[in-house]
Amino acid sequence: MDLPEDLSRSGAAAAAKRKVEEDANSGPATKRSSNSSSEGVENNITAVTDEKKSIVQTTFQTLDGFKVDSILSNSADFKRIVVEGTVGDQKAVIILDKKPFTEDILSDLFSKKSELVHTFQNDIYGSYDCVLEPKLSAVKTTIVHPATKQHIDKYRIQPFYLVQETPEIYKSVTLPYLQSSSFDIQWVHNILAHKKEADRIIFEDPDPKTGFILLPDLKWDGETINNLYLVAIVHEKGIKSLRDLTAEHIPLLQKVLTEGSEAIQKKYGLTKSQLRVYIHYQPSYYHLHIHFTALSFNAPGISTEKSHLVSTVIGNIGLSPTYYQDSTLPFTVKKGDALCEKLLENGYKF
Amino acid sequence: MDLPEDLSRSGAAAAAKRKVEEDANSGPATKRSSNSSSEGVENNITAVTDEKKSIVQTTFQTLDGFKVDSILSNSADFKRIVVEGTVGDQKAVIILDKKPFTEDILSDLFSKKSELVHTFQNDIYGSYDCVLEPKLSAVKTTIVHPATKQHIDKYRIQPFYLVQETPEIYKSVTLPYLQSSSFDIQWVHNILAHKKEADRIIFEDPDPKTGFILLPDLKWDGETINNLYLVAIVHEKGIKSLRDLTAEHIPLLQKVLTEGSEAIQKKYGLTKSQLRVYIHYQPSYYHLHIHFTALSFNAPGISTEKSHLVSTVIGNIGLSPTYYQDSTLPFTVKKGDALCEKLLENGYKF
Repeated sequence: MDLPEDLSRSGAAAAAKRKVEEDANSGPATKRSSNSSSEGVENNITAVTDEKKSIVQTTFQTLDGFKVDSILSNSADFKRIVVEGTVGDQKAVIILDKKPFTEDILSDLFSKKSELVHTFQNDIYGSYDCVLEPKLSAVKTTIVHPATKQHIDKYRIQPFYLVQETPEIYKSVTLPYLQSSSFDIQWVHNILAHKKEADRIIFEDPDPKTGFILLPDLKWDGETINNLYLVAIVHEKGIKSLRDLTAEHIPLLQKVLTEGSEAIQKKYGLTKSQLRVYIHYQPSYYHLHIHFTALSFNAPGISTEKSHLVSTVIGNIGLSPTYYQDSTLPFTVKKGDALCEKLLENGYKF
Repeated sequence: MDLPEDLSRSGAAAAAKRKVEEDANSGPATKRSSNSSSEGVENNITAVTDEKKSIVQTTFQTLDGFKVDSILSNSADFKRIVVEGTVGDQKAVIILDKKPFTEDILSDLFSKKSELVHTFQNDIYGSYDCVLEPKLSAVKTTIVHPATKQHIDKYRIQPFYLVQETPEIYKSVTLPYLQSSSFDIQWVHNILAHKKEADRIIFEDPDPKTGFILLPDLKWDGETINNLYLVAIVHEKGIKSLRDLTAEHIPLLQKVLTEGSEAIQKKYGLTKSQLRVYIHYQPSYYHLHIHFTALSFNAPGISTEKSHLVSTVIGNIGLSPTYYQDSTLPFTVKKGDALCEKLLENGYKF
């Protein structure tokens, strides 16, 4: 949870990010020029004009000239730091990500150029600092510049809190909040109507009550089996979340689990026991969808306070048909989120 | 799940590892000597004699001379690779971990020495490769040498599978397996009897039926609140796991949740809503213990197929006193593990 992922598919920020990722390999519509907008940043930047938008982009040559204003997040697990900085008179967000090791560098890595400094020895365990060749230890760097307050806030890690949502809190706070918010799920309806992403569908059961469409999640490259991630979107409209599931939905859930797993095994080779099939609460959009990830994948949002295995959900509804209406359910909120504010207004104590 | 952690505190390998960690700052009981056991590894090693064990330890000066035999694991998330190698005629395990960014290096990092190579630009998003000063990009390296097959197997990532454990499978496979295995939990009894680690106890409720001891988990440094990790060990002996919990244990679980959270708030400042309080199934040792981690910490083993929030456990037992005897419970097994073999022998289909 050091590195919260934006799971939303609506939301302007997410859409912008998605666009960046999609365009990552298509090359920039930019052209080098000799203009320079440097102020107090000597010998560091090259100005580039974006012809389409007539704005001057800046290409930096070193990290010199950035004044560090604050650390927005720092993940010791994932080896990533995000910094808010100023360069000249403009704000920037700088994201530094250490790169994974790849197999193709091993022959360069196991060489005389990898110097070891011994730090301690205990029995057969030797501990060292190893300095690699510079080319083997480059850091993936993203510079958002110029950055607005919105960009900076998007990358700033916020404290978050566990909520124990009783049925009363759901009825008096969460449900009214959901009903008053205008969550745009037109893109879901486009998929269900085959208007968009039809070529991405892996499997469909067309039954309006118990059917669903299975397709790769946007975060997945569609190829790497270790990181397999698909999502099943149910045809029935009106099931907002886990809270709405009752005994009548057992056939739907059973179908998703069985047919979805079979379709994945057929296409990608992973068996049912190599899959994690689960529902988020709270979800990122309020139309029932079920996540399928490779069990080997440390996917975002699989922690116990957020994810509910479909097999367990079926078991719980089987035990008590109104389990998800009667139970206290956990979920997390970020400080400052609208739902967090609503809970505070209604006297919830964090 | 790319990086399975060894959560076990019993087991010889884990004990050895723990010893290494405990002794990390106390300095090795070794002495440099001019002996050399190098074979085919020129100018690379320094032999060191461990006086207590009369064995010759090797200190390596570079990564040259290691023949890479196989990759035991490679985590793109955590930027860690573990390699099985041969040096001379002996086996070794080499663990390379990229280091987290720390705040104290930022002034060195944002300097002319951090060279940027522009890879692409899309609107305000610039993507670069950044080559840092060598001292800023050292890699934490652990060399296990000489390594036995047992060491190599310990670090080898194995496929793992989700098991849906019905009550029948628990009774016919899991329980007999547990009862026939000699899990050594003397160290747990030492803690409960105040014979060991007494100075590490944060809180104790001495009640023999509903009491527990709360102390920092060995994996925690005891200081960094973002990674806070404590464990509550119950005084009552004989509760092997989640499967044994019934309505009679609600007072115990409620106490752990309330008193444990209060003790943590008092000592470390995190409130109840900033904590994740959960039980593992399967646990790493079969004496009931409850994990407390900072909600912000992406702790190992918090995924939905492994961890059960105590609040949800209390709710489930409240709904049905024998919920954990009657339900199908998920857990994961690694290929080759004893329990995995037992399940296969008994006809379980993965």
